[in-house]
Amino acid sequence: MNHFRVIEVAAGRQPADLLLRGARVVNVFSGEIQHSNVALVDGAIAGVGDYRQAKEEINLEGQYILPGFIDGHIHIESTMLTPEGFAEAALAHGTTAVVADPHEIVNVCGLDGFRYMVEAFQGLPLDAYFTVPSCVPATPMETSGSSVGGEEIREAFKIHPSSPALGEMMNYPGVIHGDSKVLEIMRASLEFTPLIDGHAPTLRGKELMAYAAAGMSTDHESISAEEAREKLCLGLRIAIREGSAARNLKDLLPVVNQLNHENFFFCCDDRHPGDLVDEGGVAAILRKAVSSLDPVVAVKLATINPARHYRLDRRGGIAPGYRADLVVVNNLKDFQAKLVIKDGTLVARDGRYLGNIPRREDQRVKNTVSLPHLGDKLELKLSESKRRVRVIEVVPGQIFTRQKLMDAREAAADEDVNLAAVVERHGKNGNVSPCLVKGFGALQGALASTVAHDSHNLILVGRSPHEMEQAARAVTDSGGGLAVVKEDRTLCRLPLPVAGLMSDRSAVKVSELHEKLQEASREIGCLLEEPFMTMSFLALPVIPELKITDRGLVDVQSFSLVGLWLDET
Amino acid sequence: MNHFRVIEVAAGRQPADLLLRGARVVNVFSGEIQHSNVALVDGAIAGVGDYRQAKEEINLEGQYILPGFIDGHIHIESTMLTPEGFAEAALAHGTTAVVADPHEIVNVCGLDGFRYMVEAFQGLPLDAYFTVPSCVPATPMETSGSSVGGEEIREAFKIHPSSPALGEMMNYPGVIHGDSKVLEIMRASLEFTPLIDGHAPTLRGKELMAYAAAGMSTDHESISAEEAREKLCLGLRIAIREGSAARNLKDLLPVVNQLNHENFFFCCDDRHPGDLVDEGGVAAILRKAVSSLDPVVAVKLATINPARHYRLDRRGGIAPGYRADLVVVNNLKDFQAKLVIKDGTLVARDGRYLGNIPRREDQRVKNTVSLPHLGDKLELKLSESKRRVRVIEVVPGQIFTRQKLMDAREAAADEDVNLAAVVERHGKNGNVSPCLVKGFGALQGALASTVAHDSHNLILVGRSPHEMEQAARAVTDSGGGLAVVKEDRTLCRLPLPVAGLMSDRSAVKVSELHEKLQEASREIGCLLEEPFMTMSFLALPVIPELKITDRGLVDVQSFSLVGLWLDET
Repeated sequence: MNHFRVIEVAAGRQPADLLLRGARVVNVFSGEIQHSNVALVDGAIAGVGDYRQAKEEINLEGQYILPGFIDGHIHIESTMLTPEGFAEAALAHGTTAVVADPHEIVNVCGLDGFRYMVEAFQGLPLDAYFTVPSCVPATPMETSGSSVGGEEIREAFKIHPSSPALGEMMNYPGVIHGDSKVLEIMRASLEFTPLIDGHAPTLRGKELMAYAAAGMSTDHESISAEEAREKLCLGLRIAIREGSAARNLKDLLPVVNQLNHENFFFCCDDRHPGDLVDEGGVAAILRKAVSSLDPVVAVKLATINPARHYRLDRRGGIAPGYRADLVVVNNLKDFQAKLVIKDGTLVARDGRYLGNIPRREDQRVKNTVSLPHLGDKLELKLSESKRRVRVIEVVPGQIFTRQKLMDAREAAADEDVNLAAVVERHGKNGNVSPCLVKGFGALQGALASTVAHDSHNLILVGRSPHEMEQAARAVTDSGGGLAVVKEDRTLCRLPLPVAGLMSDRSAVKVSELHEKLQEASREIGCLLEEPFMTMSFLALPVIPELKITDRGLVDVQSFSLVGLWLDET
Repeated sequence: MNHFRVIEVAAGRQPADLLLRGARVVNVFSGEIQHSNVALVDGAIAGVGDYRQAKEEINLEGQYILPGFIDGHIHIESTMLTPEGFAEAALAHGTTAVVADPHEIVNVCGLDGFRYMVEAFQGLPLDAYFTVPSCVPATPMETSGSSVGGEEIREAFKIHPSSPALGEMMNYPGVIHGDSKVLEIMRASLEFTPLIDGHAPTLRGKELMAYAAAGMSTDHESISAEEAREKLCLGLRIAIREGSAARNLKDLLPVVNQLNHENFFFCCDDRHPGDLVDEGGVAAILRKAVSSLDPVVAVKLATINPARHYRLDRRGGIAPGYRADLVVVNNLKDFQAKLVIKDGTLVARDGRYLGNIPRREDQRVKNTVSLPHLGDKLELKLSESKRRVRVIEVVPGQIFTRQKLMDAREAAADEDVNLAAVVERHGKNGNVSPCLVKGFGALQGALASTVAHDSHNLILVGRSPHEMEQAARAVTDSGGGLAVVKEDRTLCRLPLPVAGLMSDRSAVKVSELHEKLQEASREIGCLLEEPFMTMSFLALPVIPELKITDRGLVDVQSFSLVGLWLDET
């Protein structure tokens, strides 16, 4: 910010670059709505009041100006968009800054993935503040592309000095038991920031107390009002999550009141491309929140509250000297972005980004898929056996699973029991780990995905090893992605050449392809509404009950690897 | 903090060091009052809840536990106590941390004064976070002991890396007009912290807008609700000041409501030793505030709000992992500190500090008074003249003054018109600047003080040059201080050997001596209730209307030096 010009315009001695006339300005500091002009210069807000001189002006009579929305916690990779496509799509609906944890790409590419994300956002019209991933890999029971310890933590904070926090500390058992590696990671991050993002699903009582005592400053995993209230009392800021995979807004809003609301903010955590295109991110949360929250309070949770918590200075409010990141809406009900202004420039209108952001190639995050020869490794000889097997049973619309025990022959005869496998794809050890999964339906083909939390190995589900191998090839050919295969035909494919996680196409295009993939999955008999989301969590061994990694089945309760066959635990 | 032990105690696996049983705990995060035990270990709070095992315990049934109070803006020098005496007195009433601007001592001793304050607090049981003085000297129309520019700003932040902010930017005309030296000072501080404390008395409209736009983050100078509301709307945090010299609480409280209260905090700014001993600092503000503010909201303004604004991490709340800085009170009305716990240790009981903090000598801040030979320089030949003179007229209980124009002979005949003078005492140029002052009464002696904002030159008021010189000698002999003289006798004296500003005696002793000084001043005919406070502001040329510095009379309105005689402007 050029101090001098901002002062000159604020004092009324020079004309503004852009004058927004006659709107109702939501003041997140006083909690009031002011009828006023807003003068912008050099990307900043110079003044709110009786300003009249400007090079350009926009009449906003009858409309509302809000601070740009800030997503307090998101994994950009969940949108399957590269930073450019994400910025276009997010800005279109009024999100002007995000606090993002890039742990997906760091699991695949290590600090090169971190560098890529940070560098890709330089010069983009959306501000991304990356937390430093703390749990890579998420568990020792899987093979990821890289791992993060104290040294990598320090290096990451040097790469990105404006990182606001250590990223979500998912290893809560490690924290609670004072695991020395976990404490070393926290100590390393405390050299750079006092903030540590928490992640404590279902944690309560003294375990939660111990987790908070270790230095956590947020939590975004509450699913009930009681859980959120307990965490709030411990001084944790509550990130109310309402994304595509998990939706907690309705359950948590009753905890927010006027005496405590500064301790809450909104976040998406995960957002699918279609939802981002159709509804936006934070805008969609606001739209729902105002049914039971004062609109100005709701706006605070979407703007100044995350800004203050993460110390994103001079953001999140409409005041002199603040960044000119603004959203214009018709009312405080549907929060449809009529205009979006970023750094003083109009960047979106009526929910559409104006222009196209040129894509940036980065070889460090390309060609990340390296598969072993699969041979007969996907095969399970069920019908010959009298033994009992562990089967992962998926639950429609949920990311947890159940463990189902079946007779091998019963499983072989059940059309809803399909083969599944995780294939190590980082070129580390070539692990191939087959298993059985129930709940996808009687598949007549196979699904493949290189998006599989958090290690992002290749995950396959299908009726036959042959089709699974075919599907594996379909995604490998494009450097990673999603595919649906029937016999020898690839019915549909979404290439994700960046780390096997992201596409450099537009959000609309990615969303269309994603939709087509889901249609194709239905064509081969899949019963799940979002089979690729379900698959992406099948390999995440921190969510109950039975999961599969490249090293085998994981019993999440006992946090240990178990055999496919019940008698070989 | 030893992460490991805090986690162990929080998890219930190890006993606490100290257990506080059965109190009502004021939770500043949820806004609720919880009936609970509090477990402390290693100077930190480990847990709030059902803890029972501890090496020691205190039964607090029926009492309230609050977070230690935080004074959001204070000049410690205003108490005339060195850090040790201040810590004893402040802790006694529950203040466990202060954000302090040491600009008084820096005006005298430069960065050595800053180093002294920072080092003196190391190891003291009170946390002082020093802002870096931005305006030394306050104006170019006076001679101070040192001056601060961009380089000194950088050096100070290196001396005190936990400095939260640039100190109050009093040169608001310089900011509003984009003065290059002022901008350079702000730019230098932005290399270390985004926070700049504001100081904008009576500033409104576009001038205020320009001031805020330059990057201010607080203001503590509002004297009316309208002024505070306007500043709040511009994103400034409002420090509600209620000290000894200025009292704004009653006027500003009406602005605080549940939608905006996180933007307010309490501060004393200036606090006289007697008030500090009798009523405390922040405790006294809380006591008054709860007559019109919800008690939990009031506690937030005294604890978590300043902590969050100044980023004093893990302070200001009662939660796991937070510093164990606590105040126990009988009720939420009088806020009398029954117990004060600092870093987990009981340090005060029933308003008395337990123990004596050993005093630390520091030669860098001693022997700071170096006077010129006064000779006949204090004399004004009034009765021989027919000319008109400018007379400073003081207003009882106020720090502003009026300019009164009098015939010289009329002035000479008026017993309420006394001689006054400012004598440069830093050994820089030996300036002696005599003038006339009305309103002290028909003095029969003289008063002297080396406390004279902000340059802290020697200020004298008396009926005769001889007695003024005698008074000057009385304070010089002890390295600075306050004195009352009658003829050749020193009636009373308060030595302030540290920078001519502070005494290393106890708050009670300093307060007693200060009281005696005021009695002595009445003995020599002074009509003012607090003559030394009035004198200390006589030389501050940023407060209207007519002031005196070592360089002469200052017309504050025109911000320029003027002559004593009306015809020599």
